[in-house]
Amino acid sequence: MKTNNPELNPSRTSKTPVDLMIQGGTAVTMAPGQQPITDARILIKEDRIIEIGPSAEIPIPQGFPIETVDARDAIIMPGLVNAHAHTAMTLFRGFADDLPLKEWLFERIFPAEANFLSPETVYWGALLGCVEMITSGTTCMADGYFFQDQTVRAVHESGLRGLLAQGIIDFPAPGVPDPKENIRIGRDFLEKWHHFSDRITPGLFCHSAVTCCEKTLRRSQEISREYGTPLQIHLSETSMEVSEILKAHGKRPAQYLDQLGLLDSHLIAAHGVHLDKTELQCFRKKNASIIHVPESNMKLASGIAPLEGITAMGIKTGLGTDGCASNNNLDLFGEMDTAAKLAKVSTGRSDVAKAYQMLKMATLGGAAALGLEKETGSLERGKKADIIVVNLKSPHLCPLFDPVSALVYSADGSDVKDVIVDGVVLMKEGVLCALDQDEIMAKVIEISKKIRL
Amino acid sequence: MKTNNPELNPSRTSKTPVDLMIQGGTAVTMAPGQQPITDARILIKEDRIIEIGPSAEIPIPQGFPIETVDARDAIIMPGLVNAHAHTAMTLFRGFADDLPLKEWLFERIFPAEANFLSPETVYWGALLGCVEMITSGTTCMADGYFFQDQTVRAVHESGLRGLLAQGIIDFPAPGVPDPKENIRIGRDFLEKWHHFSDRITPGLFCHSAVTCCEKTLRRSQEISREYGTPLQIHLSETSMEVSEILKAHGKRPAQYLDQLGLLDSHLIAAHGVHLDKTELQCFRKKNASIIHVPESNMKLASGIAPLEGITAMGIKTGLGTDGCASNNNLDLFGEMDTAAKLAKVSTGRSDVAKAYQMLKMATLGGAAALGLEKETGSLERGKKADIIVVNLKSPHLCPLFDPVSALVYSADGSDVKDVIVDGVVLMKEGVLCALDQDEIMAKVIEISKKIRL
Repeated sequence: MKTNNPELNPSRTSKTPVDLMIQGGTAVTMAPGQQPITDARILIKEDRIIEIGPSAEIPIPQGFPIETVDARDAIIMPGLVNAHAHTAMTLFRGFADDLPLKEWLFERIFPAEANFLSPETVYWGALLGCVEMITSGTTCMADGYFFQDQTVRAVHESGLRGLLAQGIIDFPAPGVPDPKENIRIGRDFLEKWHHFSDRITPGLFCHSAVTCCEKTLRRSQEISREYGTPLQIHLSETSMEVSEILKAHGKRPAQYLDQLGLLDSHLIAAHGVHLDKTELQCFRKKNASIIHVPESNMKLASGIAPLEGITAMGIKTGLGTDGCASNNNLDLFGEMDTAAKLAKVSTGRSDVAKAYQMLKMATLGGAAALGLEKETGSLERGKKADIIVVNLKSPHLCPLFDPVSALVYSADGSDVKDVIVDGVVLMKEGVLCALDQDEIMAKVIEISKKIRL
Repeated sequence: MKTNNPELNPSRTSKTPVDLMIQGGTAVTMAPGQQPITDARILIKEDRIIEIGPSAEIPIPQGFPIETVDARDAIIMPGLVNAHAHTAMTLFRGFADDLPLKEWLFERIFPAEANFLSPETVYWGALLGCVEMITSGTTCMADGYFFQDQTVRAVHESGLRGLLAQGIIDFPAPGVPDPKENIRIGRDFLEKWHHFSDRITPGLFCHSAVTCCEKTLRRSQEISREYGTPLQIHLSETSMEVSEILKAHGKRPAQYLDQLGLLDSHLIAAHGVHLDKTELQCFRKKNASIIHVPESNMKLASGIAPLEGITAMGIKTGLGTDGCASNNNLDLFGEMDTAAKLAKVSTGRSDVAKAYQMLKMATLGGAAALGLEKETGSLERGKKADIIVVNLKSPHLCPLFDPVSALVYSADGSDVKDVIVDGVVLMKEGVLCALDQDEIMAKVIEISKKIRL
């Protein structure tokens, strides 16, 4: 975890992990087939879970622990995985709502990004996003954006885990004025960060199969393979995108990517709203991942992804919030609730998209999509200690017939009280341990005052 | 407000209103045509707003106020109106999820209600619902349930405002074992409470046009008129209901009610999912109200109400959560967000169901549906002081380009810090002033342990 990279602010760097015990409460582990554990105890040595089970079955070793997290009247669960985010876009939260999609993108978001993104603004925007993620129970993210060194810096300093990808697009972009340089800049990014930290996986993010040409898509994939990292892309978000790809290439989006050789177990496609059955079969066959982003797809009127079909086929599926310009928050608890309800109403079946399935998509499912399921996404001995504790002492979580139902249908991010990532306590009893929330918010407010079009 | 009704617990009765000042922050008043007021000041004398405007324009009278609510770094707004709730159903939160609708209703909810509702359980369930409403910013509700004296008791003691209606159904029901007695019990309820308190309007709630016969519907309406109170009903919630009414009466639900004379400005129809254009025109013509209940309709896969058509026609529209057995919380902030996003995705237009329109539906719109728009629903001189203060010092509400966007798309109920109803402070800086949350939750947990089928 150590670094002497001069770009990083040492005063924010997370402290060294200490031995830790989480005690009491019900553990919803998300380990396949495991029932909730009541009166649970979890022992953490450095960055890993070394014991988990009922308190009665797990003795406390002598001299252990140094620090205790009290989980009585609470649920202990894996930290949530936000599998599709543009974290620094907190800067544009509420800047452009209720507009037709084209006006929103071309007259508001793209110009705002062109005029107001800089290494400094991306850093503070990403740091605010990290604060929001920690305080609402997200411990791992898949992010794609520009000036991505700054998101690495913010995520590193925050203590979170992430697949952080440099954006690739065949147009002039923030930090990439000449699109001919986009692949070189992407490669430099991977080279710079790929040995930096086991909390941070650098990657590439192709903006879409419309805004990246064949060559860009192929080169991005080759370089991603070279560095052994997943490739992210927005895919089949709008019906217009599908039409354009059909018109240009005579194939639907998934088949087009498949033809280019992009569709494999390392591909992470966000949205997937308009994928048809044949395309889903391609995803299944090639073991590629789809990230469900329901709230953003609703707010931008992009459509309703066929979640039930996707999960029924056994396709790897994560859950994401998208950026704050189209959601407008990073609360994955709300996203699970919406995902379940939207799937039910859109299929006319109240028995699909069950609570456990939503929780899995937001934890182990997202981890698997990111290629991190051996390390995070569930509470199991030997895995990284990426853990959150959800306070049950709130009226909206009473009574408690089923902890999974409470997490998906009744809770929101504000119910999270403790957050641990890589064995380090990032929030305890609702108070951030390292980041200075007031300073970060003040800085973003200062930046936001200049954002005008 | 005084009462010597022996059923009511005097120790919980709200304290006498005191003179009050709300100071600082941005007031989103919802008064028609008014822009947000920055650095606002509101003066409250007894139960009413006597001044509202920018601090600089409103001098503080000598000796005034007795109590101050600090709204710096916050938004001051009208309390939310939950226009369709079954408050005591907090008892069944998370008791039955992810089931086919018929199984949910006939094998879980109806049997649970038959076996476990009593005056005592309804009282505690309703009280927990009141706590949840207060802590998430709701100040007024429209409720319909059984053992309704107990909901009156709970709402009275909580300090909230409400249209509280005795349930009417042509089947044996909790507290109404003989359905032939349902009208008599309804009338007794109105007679008992109609002069009791200006915070509480007693009413009747016909369960549906399928579960109440023509005679029951007509009698309920006659008695409601006699007492000058609105009549609530579930209408066109499911397509099966529409088919049944069509089959039995040869008319669609709204036309059937219209034929019976029920469709007038006092009728409040919850759900309205499957109303067609002709039915909406009936609602418009007769000035009847529709309550939009999007999350419950999604969770039970009932369908998507035509919100855009309803509001475009100028039909009176409120927003409701439904009971906690089908939502599973009473957070109207989340409901506004979902309402907007669902309308956008279902119409394919991201520019419909704008944030301000959602906020209006959840405040002044709901108040108008309940016939209370002269008293509550907006912050205006002379109106009742039903006011909430939303804390902005949270990462998910930063930065702030537009307070209305922040309230609808970014906030949740946990951001509410102060709640005032009828000039009385019910929550201050996140702490309930009168109700004992721990005692109420403990009591509901005790009750819930007996709820098994």
